[in-house]
Amino acid sequence: MPESHARRREALRSVLRERAVDAALVTNLINVRYLTGFTGSNAALLIGTEPSMDVFSTDGRYVTQSEAEVPDLPLHVGRASATALLERAEATAHKIAYETHVVSVDDARRLQDSAPKLEFVSIDSAVEDLRAIKDDQEIELLRQAAAIADQALAQMIEAGGIIAGRTEREIALELDFRMLRLGAEEVSFESIVATGPNSAIPHHSPTDRLLASGDLIKLDFGATYLGYHSDMTRTYAVGRIADWQREIYELVAQSQAAGSEALEIGKTGKDIDTVSREIITAAGYGDTFAHSLGHGVGLEVHEAPNLSQLAETKLADRVCVTVEPGVYLPGRGGVRIEDTLVLHHDAAAPRATRTDLLTTTSKELVVL
Amino acid sequence: MPESHARRREALRSVLRERAVDAALVTNLINVRYLTGFTGSNAALLIGTEPSMDVFSTDGRYVTQSEAEVPDLPLHVGRASATALLERAEATAHKIAYETHVVSVDDARRLQDSAPKLEFVSIDSAVEDLRAIKDDQEIELLRQAAAIADQALAQMIEAGGIIAGRTEREIALELDFRMLRLGAEEVSFESIVATGPNSAIPHHSPTDRLLASGDLIKLDFGATYLGYHSDMTRTYAVGRIADWQREIYELVAQSQAAGSEALEIGKTGKDIDTVSREIITAAGYGDTFAHSLGHGVGLEVHEAPNLSQLAETKLADRVCVTVEPGVYLPGRGGVRIEDTLVLHHDAAAPRATRTDLLTTTSKELVVL
Repeated sequence: MPESHARRREALRSVLRERAVDAALVTNLINVRYLTGFTGSNAALLIGTEPSMDVFSTDGRYVTQSEAEVPDLPLHVGRASATALLERAEATAHKIAYETHVVSVDDARRLQDSAPKLEFVSIDSAVEDLRAIKDDQEIELLRQAAAIADQALAQMIEAGGIIAGRTEREIALELDFRMLRLGAEEVSFESIVATGPNSAIPHHSPTDRLLASGDLIKLDFGATYLGYHSDMTRTYAVGRIADWQREIYELVAQSQAAGSEALEIGKTGKDIDTVSREIITAAGYGDTFAHSLGHGVGLEVHEAPNLSQLAETKLADRVCVTVEPGVYLPGRGGVRIEDTLVLHHDAAAPRATRTDLLTTTSKELVVL
Repeated sequence: MPESHARRREALRSVLRERAVDAALVTNLINVRYLTGFTGSNAALLIGTEPSMDVFSTDGRYVTQSEAEVPDLPLHVGRASATALLERAEATAHKIAYETHVVSVDDARRLQDSAPKLEFVSIDSAVEDLRAIKDDQEIELLRQAAAIADQALAQMIEAGGIIAGRTEREIALELDFRMLRLGAEEVSFESIVATGPNSAIPHHSPTDRLLASGDLIKLDFGATYLGYHSDMTRTYAVGRIADWQREIYELVAQSQAAGSEALEIGKTGKDIDTVSREIITAAGYGDTFAHSLGHGVGLEVHEAPNLSQLAETKLADRVCVTVEPGVYLPGRGGVRIEDTLVLHHDAAAPRATRTDLLTTTSKELVVL
């Protein structure tokens, strides 16, 4: 979809003009992919204040691929993509922005040595800020990634895959395999399958522990589809359910619903985190909810904007975020429920915000 | 295995003393894992010229895990692990080495601001250089990772998985699933399954192309076991074999065998690359072998030492490298054969070097 990539480059160009910078050197491969569509493992991109300055560079391995993926930019072929672009840029640019948050100290020195006449400044998170706002194509890919994860979980439950006697590893492997068979290009991250006392560990790598009747099982997983990630968590009871399990499940479900309903363009990530957190704190479990409420999802599984006590940026039209509160009782078990949602400006909706749910698996309390 | 981690830290300590640096701040998580055994996603490590200066830091999510994985170092708990360690280091150190090849420009500034009295210098590749030399435990894990990949391929061939009519994606998915079921914690990298003309693309992502009789199929894949990677490539003919396919197969096999036999402690990576490359060049296919001959394998799938025309460092006792020449005929097909091998000093062996083959799948020409 070259049109959307060209649109994204124009948006970056506007930022450069606002900042009175002549050009930007983009070397973070995810940002390069966002701005060009290129999916290989070596590339650099120069974006100027004038489109005629734009150049894409990769090495000989990727010539055919880049001609297909990046048909709309001049190509420079060479191993040292970034320094080659800077040497060219010296002819037309004076001040250049680069990604000081990802470029290493050694690479920065190499860049500066390759173009001694240029003045280097930080681009800060300009590209990441653009990435936080999703276009229609991106939302569609995020929806498809989420649908793969939803379907994989439904298939596994339908097939009796969550049953006492299986190991966490076996369940995770089946879930991963089902996502890949449904068209995921890879899993979004190492699937978390945490059973019994392990469910009280917020991040847990699947082990050989056997799922047992009376356990909670927490599954946190996602699919990647054409570069876009999904992320969801569901928790189930197995065989039977104890009162304490029901209590924390209902509490987390209530907190999760309240956070999702509070999502509103113009509010901060902190505002939303506070809504969900206060419910858990009021019930006396605030200390156990030791992580933030959510995060943006897109070409990376964690990206802007965050929903946390430190997130002062206002939520914008078309951001895509997770809402994932949890309560964790060490040695006993824990519950987390996580959805991924997209915010849309909609004058007809309450508070002018419509929220589209991408992860559609039921959040009802289920005993499997 | 805390003893091996302690031994590795002592080796780094010797480097610091040689360089007259008081301490090293290690933030690359793979280097942290190598020196401590910690497998989480946030950590920093301070190693001093005196063992009493050593401190490990991670955040609240990983307290239990780090107590199990890093029982032999004092723990500092906090989100900003690296800056917290530097603030402590200021009391006892003047000159500190850090990883300028991985720390971003922004993070370097943060580190320097957090400890203004310290003098910062580069640690260069000191930890990576240590990692190039494998200890017995590492060699055993590399061997197990390679055995998983060997077994997965053998099982798939035995089950008739490589057969005309299947897609590259299906074959890759089956191979991945078999590696995971055999105990791989993850695949080493996205498996390459390249059929027919696609086999002429050195790096190729599996597509929906159907494997057909008369194709070459190139499989480049590996398993990760307790953090250690394997890497192997085999190429097969399917259904029948044409003369040109046999010719390039035998050429690559000859080049691969010659490179493996040339491996010798004290020779450079360039020496070995040259041996394999000259055979392919002499046959008139030198232009198509456009990548380097091999690379080190360990906690990363690509690490030191390289076997390439640029590799002037001498191979040392206990390095682990791939040998993977290829010939690629655009539009027709290609062959690559890759093994992973470990060099050992052995006074009784020819040229005092014994070479242990980790990837044991046959390299005979097979028509499936």
